[in-house]
Amino acid sequence: MAKSICEVLGIKYPIIQGGMAWISDAKMAAAVSNAGGAGIISCGGRTTDYVRDEIRKAKTLTDKPFGVNIMLMAPNKDEILEVICEEKPAFVTLGAGNPVPFVEPLHKAGIKVIPVVPNVKLAKRLEQNNADAIVVEGMEAGGHIGVLTTMALMTQVIPEVNIPVVMAGGIADGRGIAAALLMGAAGVQMGTRFLVAEECPVHDNFKQKLIEAVDTDTIVTGQTIKSAVRGLKNKFSEEYQALEFSGKATKEELLKLATGTNKLAAVDGDMEKGMIQAGQSLTPLKKIEPMATIIESLVTEARATLAEAKNIKI
Amino acid sequence: MAKSICEVLGIKYPIIQGGMAWISDAKMAAAVSNAGGAGIISCGGRTTDYVRDEIRKAKTLTDKPFGVNIMLMAPNKDEILEVICEEKPAFVTLGAGNPVPFVEPLHKAGIKVIPVVPNVKLAKRLEQNNADAIVVEGMEAGGHIGVLTTMALMTQVIPEVNIPVVMAGGIADGRGIAAALLMGAAGVQMGTRFLVAEECPVHDNFKQKLIEAVDTDTIVTGQTIKSAVRGLKNKFSEEYQALEFSGKATKEELLKLATGTNKLAAVDGDMEKGMIQAGQSLTPLKKIEPMATIIESLVTEARATLAEAKNIKI
Repeated sequence: MAKSICEVLGIKYPIIQGGMAWISDAKMAAAVSNAGGAGIISCGGRTTDYVRDEIRKAKTLTDKPFGVNIMLMAPNKDEILEVICEEKPAFVTLGAGNPVPFVEPLHKAGIKVIPVVPNVKLAKRLEQNNADAIVVEGMEAGGHIGVLTTMALMTQVIPEVNIPVVMAGGIADGRGIAAALLMGAAGVQMGTRFLVAEECPVHDNFKQKLIEAVDTDTIVTGQTIKSAVRGLKNKFSEEYQALEFSGKATKEELLKLATGTNKLAAVDGDMEKGMIQAGQSLTPLKKIEPMATIIESLVTEARATLAEAKNIKI
Repeated sequence: MAKSICEVLGIKYPIIQGGMAWISDAKMAAAVSNAGGAGIISCGGRTTDYVRDEIRKAKTLTDKPFGVNIMLMAPNKDEILEVICEEKPAFVTLGAGNPVPFVEPLHKAGIKVIPVVPNVKLAKRLEQNNADAIVVEGMEAGGHIGVLTTMALMTQVIPEVNIPVVMAGGIADGRGIAAALLMGAAGVQMGTRFLVAEECPVHDNFKQKLIEAVDTDTIVTGQTIKSAVRGLKNKFSEEYQALEFSGKATKEELLKLATGTNKLAAVDGDMEKGMIQAGQSLTPLKKIEPMATIIESLVTEARATLAEAKNIKI
């Protein structure tokens, strides 16, 4: 059995916060790390100066390990890599492109490398290319997604690799954490659940919308052009999906239509024209609380769930 | 906590076989029930005479409880209900339509009613309408699917109802069964995993194709017309999806194009023009084995997985 992600990263609880573009900054990441998990600063859409400043800021806010997420579709990914190698956060997660060329330079800088992979084939490839762990993300997650679900990935990826597998997608309570660990996951990554943390800088309109949302409230845009993004149903996302399913827009037109909509929702709080990226497990999001409260209650519930295993008869 | 499905149905193991149109017949259902689970005869696409004959045949092949699945889109569903009430199998699963009007007549005949539901709202509705249990199916399942995944449904549905919840979708090994039970499921329903049982009458071409298939080999057709079906990628399903994403076919044309393709794959073994309905968790399907061997190995692995819970640190 692979090591726990706690051993890999030197953290207390096997919970990583997902990198969320335009949202997860130094303050949010430090809050997760201070609570015993591992926070992640997102570089999506950001300048190298922003990334350097946030890493430095996070170091003043926590003495615990935290990470940085590199979006491999970003045009400035090579410059961001340089900054990260200089500033040396504990680890890097990266995906939506080929992570292999990034492993060696990050390792040389003493940084752990945790690629995000969507299937068995890529999981094996990253194991062969010396990844320290992998994040495997089901399509119930928010934001950019693949096609396999968390249950299908836990069933098929975990037995096939010997490196630690962090499961993501649809996990929003302690029962989900317990189930992932029971199936052999080394830890979990959670994004949407942390959006309602006090320390999360997402616009308050966004938080309120999440608290009201139920299980059936998400929609996937961009599937037909292999650029699938999950978010809440609203004017933008429903009209976008209707347009793409009509076949009346080109790939270029659809990509252009989506550009800037994540920031519009997350930063500006536009709940009609913005893309409100979020995963399917929404009902556990009931109120705005401190990150430490959220993480402690997740861990308490996960422990209680695991303790019940001995009473299950089969 | 709700009762185990074992108590509800009087079976040994909390494993139900999914109803699979043109596939799950008396022989297959009896094999599952004799192995300690609960088999299900599918009525999809069948005549009332077929249904009566298969129920009678199953009674000669097993003295254990078995069920029947009614496809509520079938034009002859009311006649099939009559036959079922006369022949009295232990239970009925039913979905893809409104199951509420079926509860009372089936209960009067002494038959347990287990609707298949895709979200929290319908789960609560069926609880209020006296369902004995519900099957909640994630979109990683094969055949007709909804949009929520197994992890999202386990997270959100199980805490919201007090009746037993049987989880389905992507569960194909003992680890998945253990995880579902740990999250509070009363049992699991599995379909694809049983397609490679010796007693399963699906065409041998189909079985061989499943054994070769990997995690990324499924595709969903009919999403754009709210008639989503998951199956293996092949000439038919890839061309169908390309056509629907092009926006160049009407809903009627798409529905017509799909008609008969399930039977073509399952009965005739046409692996190019047929729709090979199957779920995402394909790698555990390694060989053709007796149903009893498959079920015993699932239970052994589920028990071993649950026993490991005490060693998990969080």
